[in-house]
Amino acid sequence: MTPTITAIAQSPDRGRGLARDMRARWALEEVGQSYDVRLLSFSEMKEPAHRALHPFGQIPTYEEGELALFESGAIVLHIAERHAGLLPAEPNARARAIGWMFAALNTMEPPIVDRQMAVLLESDKPWHEQRLPLVEERIRARLHQLSARLGDDDWLDDDFTAGDLLMVDVLRKLSASGLLNEYANLSAYVARGEARPAFKRAFDAQLAVFIATSQN
Amino acid sequence: MTPTITAIAQSPDRGRGLARDMRARWALEEVGQSYDVRLLSFSEMKEPAHRALHPFGQIPTYEEGELALFESGAIVLHIAERHAGLLPAEPNARARAIGWMFAALNTMEPPIVDRQMAVLLESDKPWHEQRLPLVEERIRARLHQLSARLGDDDWLDDDFTAGDLLMVDVLRKLSASGLLNEYANLSAYVARGEARPAFKRAFDAQLAVFIATSQN
Repeated sequence: MTPTITAIAQSPDRGRGLARDMRARWALEEVGQSYDVRLLSFSEMKEPAHRALHPFGQIPTYEEGELALFESGAIVLHIAERHAGLLPAEPNARARAIGWMFAALNTMEPPIVDRQMAVLLESDKPWHEQRLPLVEERIRARLHQLSARLGDDDWLDDDFTAGDLLMVDVLRKLSASGLLNEYANLSAYVARGEARPAFKRAFDAQLAVFIATSQN
Repeated sequence: MTPTITAIAQSPDRGRGLARDMRARWALEEVGQSYDVRLLSFSEMKEPAHRALHPFGQIPTYEEGELALFESGAIVLHIAERHAGLLPAEPNARARAIGWMFAALNTMEPPIVDRQMAVLLESDKPWHEQRLPLVEERIRARLHQLSARLGDDDWLDDDFTAGDLLMVDVLRKLSASGLLNEYANLSAYVARGEARPAFKRAFDAQLAVFIATSQN
């Protein structure tokens, strides 16, 4: 059965693949599962029909037969559990890969989103210029720790897993900030993720949506 | 095999059960799995021996034979996968429960931690008084959506799951803020979680640590 995900019709990132549908698309491409996409406008995301599917009025959602899921992390894990390619078979390695999924979303992403919120919602505030360096120091602290753990390895724990997929996706949100450039091994790690054929297919698919909807 | 978790010897919450070892303790109590606790000082958390176990120098970690895990969400999921009591058996209900785990940690917790960081690290800044209401509005927006979804139900999706465990734990961080009091059903939901015998055992265990270590 072909699953259906939701995505934003005109993503504010202008097709740079920074919206969270990218995570679901990339995971589906890694495991070779075709999928349908239902596009939503920002106003449709806040309407009761979508709220019934996603209580927080966001994207992506994932529908497959009787199952309706929200939260990109849960969607990636669901895909990874049902198809080979995103989680190791050995139980301890599998648990560690899921650990990196949570690390990406619960340890690395919050300060990075905090910076996005500051730039998006507080850049007109009198404190913005003074506060931004504090926020960036919190991100650097995490990048420093992640960089130390990764070292010269290609991926966080042996082969590429769903943990790398989410970590690369989260780090990509820093591309405009320049912060990632301070850590050569993390920059190379993100580039390695972006070079995967499945990433490229997912990226091209979301870019095609942006190009098509912005021509209307 | 009895697993070993790590916790802070003298938690800055003074035994109110707001540190993240509480999640692991509660999950272990729900499934009836005994466990050992290794206590760490703040300086020990930053040392190489602990960094090898937890690259971000935090607690809890979870060790069981050859397996070493970090990230409280991953630890709770690992416990839930290996014991009955925290995830439904029916596959779609199981996937939705895991969805609520990610919702707790990736949608609800970030603005709540943002408020904690503001109070802890920015209360001496000239902008603190003006900025705090903005942060609290972001939390209210999420609480409003969660409250609408919960309605008059006891738990987020039928029976109590690991999703409720993490959601209650995350909402408890708001106890000092007064924000939760604005949502009667969410306050009752948290109280329902705190009334569970497994919660009480976990709470008492972490409080006992604080009392013992603060008497030295």
